[in-house]
Amino acid sequence: MKSSIKVVFIGLGGRGRNVMSIMLRMPDVEVVGVCDLRPEMLAKGVALVKERRGVEPVATVDYQELLRRDEVDAVMVTTGWNEHLGLCAEAMLAGKYVATEVGGANSLEQCWDIVRASERSKMPCMMLENCCYGRKEMMVLNMVRQGLFGEIIHAEGGYLHDLRKEIALGYERGHFRHAQNQHRNGDVYPTHALGPIAKCLDINRGNRMMTLTSVSSKGRGLNTWLHEHYGADHEKANYPFAMGDVTTTIITCAHGETIMLTHSTTLPRPYSRRTVIQGTKGIWMEDKKGFYFDGISEKEEQWDSIDKYYPEYEHPLWKSYQDGGKLTETVEGHGGMDYLVQRAFVEAVKNGTPTPIDVYDTAAWMAITCLSEDSVAMGGQPVPIPDFTNGKWMNRRDVAEGPYSLDRIPEK
Amino acid sequence: MKSSIKVVFIGLGGRGRNVMSIMLRMPDVEVVGVCDLRPEMLAKGVALVKERRGVEPVATVDYQELLRRDEVDAVMVTTGWNEHLGLCAEAMLAGKYVATEVGGANSLEQCWDIVRASERSKMPCMMLENCCYGRKEMMVLNMVRQGLFGEIIHAEGGYLHDLRKEIALGYERGHFRHAQNQHRNGDVYPTHALGPIAKCLDINRGNRMMTLTSVSSKGRGLNTWLHEHYGADHEKANYPFAMGDVTTTIITCAHGETIMLTHSTTLPRPYSRRTVIQGTKGIWMEDKKGFYFDGISEKEEQWDSIDKYYPEYEHPLWKSYQDGGKLTETVEGHGGMDYLVQRAFVEAVKNGTPTPIDVYDTAAWMAITCLSEDSVAMGGQPVPIPDFTNGKWMNRRDVAEGPYSLDRIPEK
Repeated sequence: MKSSIKVVFIGLGGRGRNVMSIMLRMPDVEVVGVCDLRPEMLAKGVALVKERRGVEPVATVDYQELLRRDEVDAVMVTTGWNEHLGLCAEAMLAGKYVATEVGGANSLEQCWDIVRASERSKMPCMMLENCCYGRKEMMVLNMVRQGLFGEIIHAEGGYLHDLRKEIALGYERGHFRHAQNQHRNGDVYPTHALGPIAKCLDINRGNRMMTLTSVSSKGRGLNTWLHEHYGADHEKANYPFAMGDVTTTIITCAHGETIMLTHSTTLPRPYSRRTVIQGTKGIWMEDKKGFYFDGISEKEEQWDSIDKYYPEYEHPLWKSYQDGGKLTETVEGHGGMDYLVQRAFVEAVKNGTPTPIDVYDTAAWMAITCLSEDSVAMGGQPVPIPDFTNGKWMNRRDVAEGPYSLDRIPEK
Repeated sequence: MKSSIKVVFIGLGGRGRNVMSIMLRMPDVEVVGVCDLRPEMLAKGVALVKERRGVEPVATVDYQELLRRDEVDAVMVTTGWNEHLGLCAEAMLAGKYVATEVGGANSLEQCWDIVRASERSKMPCMMLENCCYGRKEMMVLNMVRQGLFGEIIHAEGGYLHDLRKEIALGYERGHFRHAQNQHRNGDVYPTHALGPIAKCLDINRGNRMMTLTSVSSKGRGLNTWLHEHYGADHEKANYPFAMGDVTTTIITCAHGETIMLTHSTTLPRPYSRRTVIQGTKGIWMEDKKGFYFDGISEKEEQWDSIDKYYPEYEHPLWKSYQDGGKLTETVEGHGGMDYLVQRAFVEAVKNGTPTPIDVYDTAAWMAITCLSEDSVAMGGQPVPIPDFTNGKWMNRRDVAEGPYSLDRIPEK
């Protein structure tokens, strides 16, 4: 086990520097290199490391310069969505552990690319899906593992976030969602909901996603918003954005479970990831902040508050995280989940062990985006979801263990 | 206008007698005939009329005897699901106004049957979809008509009701859901959610449903419940019920709106119809009992309680219903919605006017069931939804007016 690790960051926009800022709180992590094509972002990244650690990292516009460095243990891919997968593959082939920020794939080929790169290089690739380490999500996972829900039957989730202003005006400052909304139509951001659900369903560890069907509504949210706020003469007011305002996707799994996902970022509404986990003995519903369990819930057919369940079912990782006092100092990262997902990656790099979200998860979760586009384009036609493990999912044992594990260790 | 009307009831099970009991509160309605194949149900129906009105209705096991009677103005079809549509068609062809209880169709042909019968006989056929007259549903409809939601983009709803006991043991007393769960797989009960949504979306009055795709999870709820409560030796404990525990359906509409429906009656959970109505300027979410509107809601991205909106947006029908003091005496029928939907039918019969839910609505809403089955059987394949109006939907004017109307009167 390494006592400390050396990481580099590719991509220093808002999210990249945010991730770096949290990682710079970890005494066993050194940020030895940073890369961005934009000089002002590069300078900001360098300044952040210098301010927090007193030393300057290597700064470059050429990411390959960073990949060539032997002392680098891990590469953090925090660019825009479109560049994630190609950089992941290259970084693994250079012999590095790789972490990538969330996003969706543009093609299945991109997803296979990271699978091949990981299998050839034996290096892991972990999507930093922070919601897998959310407090509520981890408690629910803990309860699923303990059997409270019985057999899991159905799950729901989504990304329902009013981002009209950012998307409508995003082109002025290169916000990647603007281009996505201009040109694509489908669930471009499935992983915040799908990640935690996939873990509850043992996807790629005894189960897998088989098909999906995806349908989009018309898209009127951005145009309406621009008309209201900037008038009919705004240059984007009548732009025919390709993206529908609401995309609904239904995924089927090998063992008969269904997953319903929603993507909606261009209509007014309060934020929600709308998670539902439903089994033969109980249900969790995020929008109700409530559980209902046969024989446990106090009142028949009435929601029990989540607060009743924390004392008994809080995930051990969250318990120790809160006990260790790290919660307050790291609360900037979405209430602690950012810290935990990064810490899970760092621990795997230090120990040379598998990452709890691995290359098969990353590939399968990101593939939902391009498959959703395909299905939407064909009027909701069901499309197959590839088995990126090539059959290994039926009896995989190379899964993560230890306190940060999200995996069920398969029997036998 | 008639000062009073004569109705007959076909089907005197629990629901039939419940409907009749509410109708017997209306002084301008006489129940002149009742029919059921089961002698004990027939006797109960007769007793109910006699108790409340002091006279005996004609009682028969032959519904055609009732249809032949000239004095009968309207026929109430309150049998099991499977018999609704055939009886509706026959009753219309006999020259009667027809009301049918809710349910789903077994084939498109059945749906066309009632359309043809209505067009030939000029008699209306109204599904008694009580949820269209729910207090919340009517206020939301009122707000949609007043433009608060802007352009409607997406809607959701469903029937999520833990009926495991009734369904699992229903075969002992002829509960029709038992057979449905044994043999069918799809959304067999779509109309409680779809009815109110269809009215918000002007379906069959300027808009129509175009396609649907439907996917079911595995079904384990009934078997698990039977094992837990009756043991592995119960004769149905291991019965391979065809029905999935959760069916998710996505409908597309002519103007680009999407409707997501859920059917789930065999898993533990609190009851919900989970309605969501979402437009360019706001959203209603039943599970939150809340609204959010651009420029109206007090706090950004926070739900406003429904209670804030009743004073200004309560539907006029509900206002007068409450003011008239009828609410307390009729509260037995799902809080008043049963009374109102029946009253809407009675008013149409008395006035000889179109029913607010008409034969095209009844056909289209019930068709979702067999189309959902088709799509589920084909792995989520999208299937077309027929235009039961044969093009009239684009500019229909034969719609209901008056206080019970649910329709938008088309322009020009």
